[in-house]
Amino acid sequence: MRSEIEAALARYLELEPECPAQLREAMQYSLLAGGKRLRPVLVLLACEACGGEISDALPAACAIEMVHTYSLIHDDLPAMDNDDLRRGRPTNHKVFGDAMAILAGDALLTLAFEILARDIQPPAVAAACCADLASAAGAAGMVGGQVADIQAEKIPVGTLEALEGIHRRKTGRLLCSALTLGARIAQAEESTLHSLREYGESLGLAFQIIDDLLDVRGNEATVGKGVNKDAAHGKLTYPKLLGEEASLERARELVEHACRSIAPLGAEGQRLKTLAHFVLERDR
Amino acid sequence: MRSEIEAALARYLELEPECPAQLREAMQYSLLAGGKRLRPVLVLLACEACGGEISDALPAACAIEMVHTYSLIHDDLPAMDNDDLRRGRPTNHKVFGDAMAILAGDALLTLAFEILARDIQPPAVAAACCADLASAAGAAGMVGGQVADIQAEKIPVGTLEALEGIHRRKTGRLLCSALTLGARIAQAEESTLHSLREYGESLGLAFQIIDDLLDVRGNEATVGKGVNKDAAHGKLTYPKLLGEEASLERARELVEHACRSIAPLGAEGQRLKTLAHFVLERDR
Repeated sequence: MRSEIEAALARYLELEPECPAQLREAMQYSLLAGGKRLRPVLVLLACEACGGEISDALPAACAIEMVHTYSLIHDDLPAMDNDDLRRGRPTNHKVFGDAMAILAGDALLTLAFEILARDIQPPAVAAACCADLASAAGAAGMVGGQVADIQAEKIPVGTLEALEGIHRRKTGRLLCSALTLGARIAQAEESTLHSLREYGESLGLAFQIIDDLLDVRGNEATVGKGVNKDAAHGKLTYPKLLGEEASLERARELVEHACRSIAPLGAEGQRLKTLAHFVLERDR
Repeated sequence: MRSEIEAALARYLELEPECPAQLREAMQYSLLAGGKRLRPVLVLLACEACGGEISDALPAACAIEMVHTYSLIHDDLPAMDNDDLRRGRPTNHKVFGDAMAILAGDALLTLAFEILARDIQPPAVAAACCADLASAAGAAGMVGGQVADIQAEKIPVGTLEALEGIHRRKTGRLLCSALTLGARIAQAEESTLHSLREYGESLGLAFQIIDDLLDVRGNEATVGKGVNKDAAHGKLTYPKLLGEEASLERARELVEHACRSIAPLGAEGQRLKTLAHFVLERDR
């Protein structure tokens, strides 16, 4: 499944003859840098769990990974988190300069919608997927979460509720969208979309807790980006708020809740359950 | 027509309860700063010329103005053109900071696709509009043109062909998209889309020539942004390449060509012709 995603991503970046060579290179540098491909895998697994064909969902899998990658490129900029390292390599702006990094991010975001709108069938599903992804990625979702995250560095949030409110927008909404895109392509019922959204919300928070724990416990070579950055930025994290043990326990509970949420899918949901448990075990 | 566009733009930025207040403010600051609204007017006029209802095209008019505004916010950033003044006011990053300006641009681009996908009917037209706008705004269109423009500051282009190649992508593709969005919403024939694209290409180049001439001849208060910037940046412009008189003559020819291109629309195309001639007369 991962190799199909990698091949499709590479193919989409070849198909732009009018794209300036250096822009294409900057887009490829970040999009084809490996990574967990969690969001595209979720698109395909959700589609499969709802009885759809994985190949029909591949464009949506690529689109959501492009949105995720653009957000990383922009978040890493000096004006934002000012990070030098990402997935074990220099960040995009370190290699291509700030202007090209901004434009490569803009181009990836735009290409995501072009692919969804053009390559998902039927057109009514394509339009629903575009609206779904845009809502998750925009001012009320991912971009809004990034703003709230930046603001929290100045006026730190102090409660679990506030912390989860940021993560729900910054990472949770896009994870949920991965699942609903896959389900929409399989023409799933609204009740199934609802179950998958609940799974996605819990999984997203669990994923963030493990991310916070890796920042405290991980080592830079394995994690592939700078560690202990959260403390350096004065950010509130789960381990800081709850302690490491209680954070891990909360992640476990969330994964259990995620799995219960998709009980209505029956045996078809098995691979989504396996993936949720894998999130707990990850070391990068 | 302008007042309908202004009202619809303002309404779209109210409808985001989960959007952080400062992000909304930054989006409003640039989107509701007036401006010529050329692209949304073209969407509505094209829809009308093809026999459609203007009110059906209003979401697309707003979407394309959001894409245009995001591109101005990002282009003005210190990492790009580093401009302090836009439409007579401090640029977005001067007021809200670089991080917020990047994110406000990202959010406007994303919202454009959400609006198109959700509010254009029927869904098949919505999907076609999303694909059209994304192709025009992306790596092979507007973003690619901006990259080529930045590269031309380092290795200046010396021919009319190279200069027009940049403008065709940087501003021309989006202008064409304004016209084809309007036509698609009116369910126009492919041959009509083709005529409107030709009109848009010529109008876009004429518009750019006048822009270059205003930069040389205009005064800062009227134009609403810094003048003589092109010379300061060492950019190739039409007046530099052809001289001022020949540039104006070329703009006139292009406007005539634009008007001939939409002859097949007959009397319905009159307002588009009037607008094309207005582009020649503008002083800001």
